Amino acid sequence: MAVYTDVSADDLIRFLSGYDIGALLAYKGIAEGVENSNFLVHTERGNFILTLYEKRVATGDLPFFLALMEHLAKRGITCPQPVHNKSGGVLGEIAGRPAAIVTFLDGLWIRRPNTGHCAAVGEALAKLHLAGADFPQQRPNALSVEGWRALYSQAKERGDGLQPGLSATIVRELDHLDRAWPRDLPRGVIHADLFPDNVFFLGDRLSGLIDFYFACTDTLVYDVAICLNAWCFEPDNSYNVTKSRALLQAYGKVRAFSATERAALPVLARGAALRFLLTRLVDWLAVPDGALVRPKDPLEYLRKLRFHQSLTSVGDYGIDA
Amino acid sequence: MAVYTDVSADDLIRFLSGYDIGALLAYKGIAEGVENSNFLVHTERGNFILTLYEKRVATGDLPFFLALMEHLAKRGITCPQPVHNKSGGVLGEIAGRPAAIVTFLDGLWIRRPNTGHCAAVGEALAKLHLAGADFPQQRPNALSVEGWRALYSQAKERGDGLQPGLSATIVRELDHLDRAWPRDLPRGVIHADLFPDNVFFLGDRLSGLIDFYFACTDTLVYDVAICLNAWCFEPDNSYNVTKSRALLQAYGKVRAFSATERAALPVLARGAALRFLLTRLVDWLAVPDGALVRPKDPLEYLRKLRFHQSLTSVGDYGIDA
Repeated sequence: MAVYTDVSADDLIRFLSGYDIGALLAYKGIAEGVENSNFLVHTERGNFILTLYEKRVATGDLPFFLALMEHLAKRGITCPQPVHNKSGGVLGEIAGRPAAIVTFLDGLWIRRPNTGHCAAVGEALAKLHLAGADFPQQRPNALSVEGWRALYSQAKERGDGLQPGLSATIVRELDHLDRAWPRDLPRGVIHADLFPDNVFFLGDRLSGLIDFYFACTDTLVYDVAICLNAWCFEPDNSYNVTKSRALLQAYGKVRAFSATERAALPVLARGAALRFLLTRLVDWLAVPDGALVRPKDPLEYLRKLRFHQSLTSVGDYGIDA
Repeated sequence: MAVYTDVSADDLIRFLSGYDIGALLAYKGIAEGVENSNFLVHTERGNFILTLYEKRVATGDLPFFLALMEHLAKRGITCPQPVHNKSGGVLGEIAGRPAAIVTFLDGLWIRRPNTGHCAAVGEALAKLHLAGADFPQQRPNALSVEGWRALYSQAKERGDGLQPGLSATIVRELDHLDRAWPRDLPRGVIHADLFPDNVFFLGDRLSGLIDFYFACTDTLVYDVAICLNAWCFEPDNSYNVTKSRALLQAYGKVRAFSATERAALPVLARGAALRFLLTRLVDWLAVPDGALVRPKDPLEYLRKLRFHQSLTSVGDYGIDA
């Protein structure tokens, strides 16, 4: 949620005249995230979020994301709700960009998650997977195993510049994952980006999930593997098996892992690490002109990948095989 | 109001425990401005702004700024109000930075001001000057005529790189202003940075003034000259004398200009243009590492300076000499 596109007061007043959320009182660009432009909008009815979808989000996917947020909320998942305009739609246009108003979700994201937070996110992820089970729309995951070679070709040239030998490591991993990737596990709606900054807490209670703009139809446990990468490493890159166990156990209590799902965790975790290594590598030298955003370190995910490569069994994640 | 310093939820909860504004519900970094880090803070009592003062603001000046905002508000100027903590103070520390909580001010800033907006800002500026008359504290203006040579020495090397001949133009202007600068005009509290993004409107009504972090004790009409630069040029750099007349007349109705003040306007306007040319030049290649902010174009103010240099009389600003 950076700010790539400026929005004038006149444009915003005109846009909001299509909604029933009262007069505009104030709005501020929000300096968070990387994909879209986000504004906090204060009207007579309270706080809302205005999101302008920038080019990396395909316009054709927006109905999927917005319908998914409504679907999940109806099944008890706390997430931002698209506000319907007077014509009943949820998608409009402002400053030349597709745009939506969503409800403002209270909550704080945790910079240094503890074991309790990891358990809460495991439980919430499993609930999300169950709630998504009857969502009728599909969206392929362009950032899963079939998409990684294309992603790598965008980053190839600069890999070794960042760290000698990086390109060879990636090519070997791509070959391994092509062969080893599990293709018959249960699929459904996954969040695909459930990092700490997308999970809100109020006190110790998980109060909501945000940023569904990578959500797609994919292997459910791949979503768990993404969370292991995002939540269970310490700042010094050591893997915290206590947090890992807590996350997996809490998930398993809501939606039980099958034996094949458990067995697939290490390769899925390698894939998840490679996915963020690749996208960060592409972003590293490709931040759009004038974007008010800092790219994230790709090598953090090389270190995470090496950890997963070094494992001998799923027991190393803190659960039984 | 960019975000230079990240604030963790734990740190903010600890900081807010010193205040009586209810529990923290959410906060977001705001992508605006350039001097400080700003967060919108949502608590059980509503919206507030948390400002972390970054290095360009001298810590010793903070009591001046905060006391001024309180002083002005007591005299009817709508501006953010520092919130007192439980010990009665208004200044604390968070993430290693001096910090304050101020009230959230509703209102929108106008990207393309019309003549009515210019009149409103003229009136508000005069009211601010009157309200500041009995403010007991003093703060010298480091960004006035005595400070410009030092500022120029920071930017000297790169001036001609930006535009050939720029350095010579600046040196000639510094010499002229040293000689011609009026030193006996009425002084008092000035805002010194009353650009459109620091003036809020709700509908056609001016609803408040923000960002007092350049406020100081200086020549009152110099503040007017800054506003002529900030409000009366069109995007194509032409000077809109209708807006200028509206701004000056509205100011004059609240606080009458003396004949010497009127006569000094052209030289003060040249000085104001030079001041923003110089600071933008310094900023152009000196944006702090990792700042989520775009520097502003210095040459915009070279073009404004040339306009003021070309004037033959104060009548060219739309008022009688």
